Amino acid sequence: MKQRVPDAVVRRLPTYYRHLRDLEHAGVVRISSRELGERTGLTASQIRQDINYFGGFGQQGYGYNVGELKKNMGDILGLTQMHNMVIIGSGNIGQAVANYPSFYNEGFRVSAMFDVDPQHIGKTVRDVVIQSSTLLEAYLTQNRVDIGVIATPAHAAQSIVDQLIAHGVRAIWNFAPTDLNCPEHVKVNNVHLSDSLLVLSYRMKECAQSSQ
Amino acid sequence: MKQRVPDAVVRRLPTYYRHLRDLEHAGVVRISSRELGERTGLTASQIRQDINYFGGFGQQGYGYNVGELKKNMGDILGLTQMHNMVIIGSGNIGQAVANYPSFYNEGFRVSAMFDVDPQHIGKTVRDVVIQSSTLLEAYLTQNRVDIGVIATPAHAAQSIVDQLIAHGVRAIWNFAPTDLNCPEHVKVNNVHLSDSLLVLSYRMKECAQSSQ
Repeated sequence: MKQRVPDAVVRRLPTYYRHLRDLEHAGVVRISSRELGERTGLTASQIRQDINYFGGFGQQGYGYNVGELKKNMGDILGLTQMHNMVIIGSGNIGQAVANYPSFYNEGFRVSAMFDVDPQHIGKTVRDVVIQSSTLLEAYLTQNRVDIGVIATPAHAAQSIVDQLIAHGVRAIWNFAPTDLNCPEHVKVNNVHLSDSLLVLSYRMKECAQSSQ
Repeated sequence: MKQRVPDAVVRRLPTYYRHLRDLEHAGVVRISSRELGERTGLTASQIRQDINYFGGFGQQGYGYNVGELKKNMGDILGLTQMHNMVIIGSGNIGQAVANYPSFYNEGFRVSAMFDVDPQHIGKTVRDVVIQSSTLLEAYLTQNRVDIGVIATPAHAAQSIVDQLIAHGVRAIWNFAPTDLNCPEHVKVNNVHLSDSLLVLSYRMKECAQSSQ
């Protein structure tokens, strides 16, 4: 894996992983790139190209072994190790992340949740007690945290992120509707809900125009 | 706007819109592509190229008029019209969408919410009463719905989507962790939370490997 993999390819990897996991559950042993394409809405040649970035794993005229390819995809995605996550903000988004069904099985463990709201502090979400945000710093000095999940309002996000980074957290999953300033070595993935809705709105308008 | 705009460009439009809106609020009148690049983390030439897909709007050596470019971006994104949304599923994700601060200002109005859970039915989220999903069909025959927001468990998503499409809904914003089958004329935007987390996991692993 010397070559840098393009962003568009990386964004498709979870789709492959998800479908391969479902295929494995359904007892499917082998799949061609054409069949995988039909399931994922991609072309067979696109799929072969994407998978070739990581070394192929298939055999001409034979297709892919589902279990093997799923395992390889999981390795590529870093799912062989347990990731400790802390969630800051226990509103709807924070709770949605804490309750998301598949995260735990894929090695993402919510080890703590924090909030500033006294009405939330002390409550439990999936066995995790919501703590006061004033205790975040102490928690970070005593525990290894791999991923910080930012589910706070926009104005609170950057100072929380600075605190996380100062204590060695190297990945931020950001749901706050703002762009964060982070040093190069920290990986950030933003889920800007409104951006996603605006893209949908664009597609609707584009479609209405082309059918005029 | 004859030429089809590449997906990567479309995905950047909401970022431009968001920053231009903030700049306008802050009273900034004019901005160069270089300055806009520093704010958004893109290069000046990328920004000029992206904006040129829609006709330019800037002037050599003068930069962009913030208010004008924001207005044009809003037009391009279809924000000049009101969109009626219904949310199916009133769990954490459904409520997060209903409560999202900026949607209403940008012309996205949650007109109804539906759920199967008797404990949710009758409760109110931001002035919208949660109705029984058995009433969805009747609602769709009597009201214009532009966007259906799917915030149900994966297994319930497709049948709800089929119902929406049968009643003329032409855009689906899907939060259920599954891929939907929709006819060509229906626009779908998926927010697969676990995909986003897996991309972050990939980036962490890639980074750890390159620093070895």
